Amino acid sequence: MKEIKVGLIGFGTVGTGVVKILQKNSKLIESRMGAKVILKRIADVDLKTDRRVRLRPGVLTRKAEEVIKDPEINIVMELIGGIEPAKTFILQAIRNRKHIVTANKALLALHGDEIFRAAHQCGVDVNFEGSVGGGIPLIRSIKEGLVANRIQSIFGILNGTSNYVLSKMTDEGKGFKEILKEAQQKGYAEADPTYDIEGIDAAHKLTILIRLAFGAAIQFKDVFIGGISEITPVDIQFGREFGYRIKLLAIAKVDGGKIEARVHPTMIPEKHLLSTVGGVFNAIYIKGDAVGPTLFYGQGAGQMPTGSAVVGDLVELGRNHLIRASGRRVPLLSYQPSSIAKVPLKKMDDVVMPFYMRFSALDRPGVLSKISGILGKNDISIAAVIQKGRQIRGAVPLVMMTHEAKEKNVHQALKEIDRLGVILGKTMVIRMENELE
Amino acid sequence: MKEIKVGLIGFGTVGTGVVKILQKNSKLIESRMGAKVILKRIADVDLKTDRRVRLRPGVLTRKAEEVIKDPEINIVMELIGGIEPAKTFILQAIRNRKHIVTANKALLALHGDEIFRAAHQCGVDVNFEGSVGGGIPLIRSIKEGLVANRIQSIFGILNGTSNYVLSKMTDEGKGFKEILKEAQQKGYAEADPTYDIEGIDAAHKLTILIRLAFGAAIQFKDVFIGGISEITPVDIQFGREFGYRIKLLAIAKVDGGKIEARVHPTMIPEKHLLSTVGGVFNAIYIKGDAVGPTLFYGQGAGQMPTGSAVVGDLVELGRNHLIRASGRRVPLLSYQPSSIAKVPLKKMDDVVMPFYMRFSALDRPGVLSKISGILGKNDISIAAVIQKGRQIRGAVPLVMMTHEAKEKNVHQALKEIDRLGVILGKTMVIRMENELE
Repeated sequence: MKEIKVGLIGFGTVGTGVVKILQKNSKLIESRMGAKVILKRIADVDLKTDRRVRLRPGVLTRKAEEVIKDPEINIVMELIGGIEPAKTFILQAIRNRKHIVTANKALLALHGDEIFRAAHQCGVDVNFEGSVGGGIPLIRSIKEGLVANRIQSIFGILNGTSNYVLSKMTDEGKGFKEILKEAQQKGYAEADPTYDIEGIDAAHKLTILIRLAFGAAIQFKDVFIGGISEITPVDIQFGREFGYRIKLLAIAKVDGGKIEARVHPTMIPEKHLLSTVGGVFNAIYIKGDAVGPTLFYGQGAGQMPTGSAVVGDLVELGRNHLIRASGRRVPLLSYQPSSIAKVPLKKMDDVVMPFYMRFSALDRPGVLSKISGILGKNDISIAAVIQKGRQIRGAVPLVMMTHEAKEKNVHQALKEIDRLGVILGKTMVIRMENELE
Repeated sequence: MKEIKVGLIGFGTVGTGVVKILQKNSKLIESRMGAKVILKRIADVDLKTDRRVRLRPGVLTRKAEEVIKDPEINIVMELIGGIEPAKTFILQAIRNRKHIVTANKALLALHGDEIFRAAHQCGVDVNFEGSVGGGIPLIRSIKEGLVANRIQSIFGILNGTSNYVLSKMTDEGKGFKEILKEAQQKGYAEADPTYDIEGIDAAHKLTILIRLAFGAAIQFKDVFIGGISEITPVDIQFGREFGYRIKLLAIAKVDGGKIEARVHPTMIPEKHLLSTVGGVFNAIYIKGDAVGPTLFYGQGAGQMPTGSAVVGDLVELGRNHLIRASGRRVPLLSYQPSSIAKVPLKKMDDVVMPFYMRFSALDRPGVLSKISGILGKNDISIAAVIQKGRQIRGAVPLVMMTHEAKEKNVHQALKEIDRLGVILGKTMVIRMENELE
C-alpha cells in the first residue's frame, strides 16, 4: 500500500487529538484514502507530559527543524498556535516544499498574505479547515461546494466560549462575570478570556471567511469588533420580550459593491436557527445567490473536533500529493490569485440596521417625549417601546427597538440623549439583524 | 484561458437552473476555477418551451447522443431524472469516457452499483451532490470533510414536500389531505405525491448516504420505509404535549456491527435543531466519532439550489480533468472499491426505541389496566400517559409514551390490544428517537 509521511509541530490539545484519530481510525482512513498515513516525527518543547498515546521510539523531538527538514516528510501540521514561532516554522516548511495543515486562525488572519504568497510561489498546498468552526466542513464547502454561488452574506457564531457564556446567561438569568467564572472552571474559557469574550477570535475567523467567500483582500484591522462583556441579564430579558436572542455574531455582507465586516453582540429573531445554537457550539449561516440560505453546525473547538478537521485536511493534501495534483487543483484562497481584489469596505458609521436601546431614565413625565424627539431629529424612528416599573439604581429602564437606522445617527443621538438631566447612566445599545427572517 | 466543454441532457427545471447559473455567474466561476465552462450542447425532447435563457444557435438538440458522442465534450450532466432513458444515457456517456454529473437519486439508489462499476472501469468521475439535500454541500462533506471519522449515525430530513406538509399541519392544526392539496396548488407537491409522502424519495437518498458514510453495499430494498399519510393533527398535538415534534426522518445507525436503515415519521424532542427545520428545507444531522454532532441545512430541492450543487460538481470534475486527476483523487463512493463490504442489516423487528401510542378506547374502568398489562407482558414499560376526555368517534384517546422497546414486541402487544373489546379502532403508533438529545 502507498504511504504518505507526515510530521506534526505542536503536541498540545489538538495535536494529541490528531495522533489519537490517526491511530484509532488508521484502517478506516486507509480504506478511504487508499494509502497509509505515517506520522514520522512530532516536535514539541514539552516532551514530559503524558498525552496517553503510544508512539514509536524516536518519533518525538524537541526540535521543529527535525520535522521541517526531514526529506521524507511531505506534509507538516502546525498546531502550536499563536504568531511566533508558528509563522517562521510554516514559512520554512513551505520553502522546503512541504504542504501545510494548520488550524491557526490568528496567524492566517494577520499574516495570511505572506504565507499564501510563499505557498503559491513554492507550489505547495496550505489547508486550514480547523481554523474556523472546528470540525465543521465549512471552508471546504465555501471553496468547493458553494463554488457556483455569489456569496451574499455570512452570519456566524464563531466563538464557542462567548456563545457558552451568552447561552448560560440566557438560560439561567445570571450575570456575565458569574458565568464567565463558571466557564473558566469548566475549561470552556481561558484564564485570560479577552480574545474570546471581546470578539477578537471571531474577527480572526471572519477575516479568513471573507477572503474565501468574496475573494476580497481584506485585513483583520478592517473588521469592526465589539465584545460581550457589557451585556447584562436585563438586556437579555428585554430582548426575549421582543422575541429576540443575543448572540455574538460575525457578520459579512456585500452591499452595493462594498463589504460590511463586523463582530458584535447582535439581537436575532428567536425563531431563527442561529438562536437555537447553544453552549460551545458554532454555526455559520451563509446565503448564496443560487443555493439560498444554508447552515453549517458543529463543535467549534476542542481536541477531537478540531482534530477531525486537521486529519481531513491531511487526507486531502495526501491525495493531492499521491496523484501529483498539489498546488494545482483548488486555489489556496478559493479564488485565483489574480482575481483577488481590494474591495472597498463600508464604514461602520454608514451601516444601517435596527437597534435595541435601553435608557436609564428618571421616572418623570416628558422623558419619552424628549428621547423620541432627539431620535426623530436624527432620522431614527421607533418600532417598539417597553417601559416597566422595575427600578435599577434609582432609574427606570426604558427600552426601545428602532426601525433601520444609520450607525452614525445613533451615536449622534445618544450623545445628545446621554447628556439629558433625566438620563442617569450610559445608554445600552445592541445592534439587531433583520436579514435573518 | 483554459476551457472545459460540457453537455447537458435534460433541459427541465434543474437543467434550466444550471444554464442560468453558468450564464449569470460565468465570470465568478472562471475566477475560482481558472478556466471557462463552455456549455456546448443541450439535449431535450422538448425544444419548444421557453426557458427564458438565451442560447447560441445550434446548442439545442433533440438527440441525447449528440451530447454523448461529441468528442469535444468532457463532462455530461444528466438531469432528466427517473430510471430510463437516464441510465442508458449515463452508461453510454461513461463508455465514451465522459465524466458524469447527475442529481438522479432514484437511479443511483436502484442502479448505482452498475453505474459506479462502469465508471470505475472507464476511469471517469461521477458526481452526484444534487441527488441528496439539493444545494447543501453534504456528499462532499461526508466524502472529504468528515473523512477522518467513523460515522456513527445519520438523521435526515431529506424530503422537502413531506416536511412542508408536516410543518404546516403542526403550525395550522389542519389535516394531512387539506395541507397536501395546498402544497400541490403551491407547487411544493407533485400531482402524484406518492414518492415524497410515502418516504420512497427519502429512502432513495438514505441508500446513497449509507453507502458513502459506512462503506456498506446496501440496497434500496434493505431500507424500511413508512410514510406520513396516516399522521393526524391529534397525534401532532399530543406529541407537542410531550415536548416532541413529528418529522419524516431518514435514520441510519451502526450498532454492534449491524446497520439500521429506516425512513418513517418520528417524534423528536422539540428543542433539537432538527425540530426547527420548517417548510421545504432539508437538514442532515451526522455524528462522527471525532467531530461529534454536525448539522447541514439548506433547500433540498428546486431549480437554483439543485443547480448550485450540479455546477459545484461540474467545477470539481472540470478541475480534475484540467490537471489529469480524473478518477484518481477521491473514490466514487467515498471508500476504495475493495473496502466496500456487505454489512449485515439489523432487522426492523429487532430495532429498539421508545414508542408513542394512541389507543382509541372506550371510556370505561379497567381499560388502562388491560392495556398496560399486555404491554408489560411484552416487555414494554410505560414512560408517560395522557388521558383526556375529548371523544373522537365515541372513543377516548389514551396516549402513551413507552421506554425503549423492541419493534417486534410492540407489534405483538398491539395485535393483542387491538383485539380487546374496549378498543374501537386501530392503534396509532409513532416511533420516537432518543439519540437526539
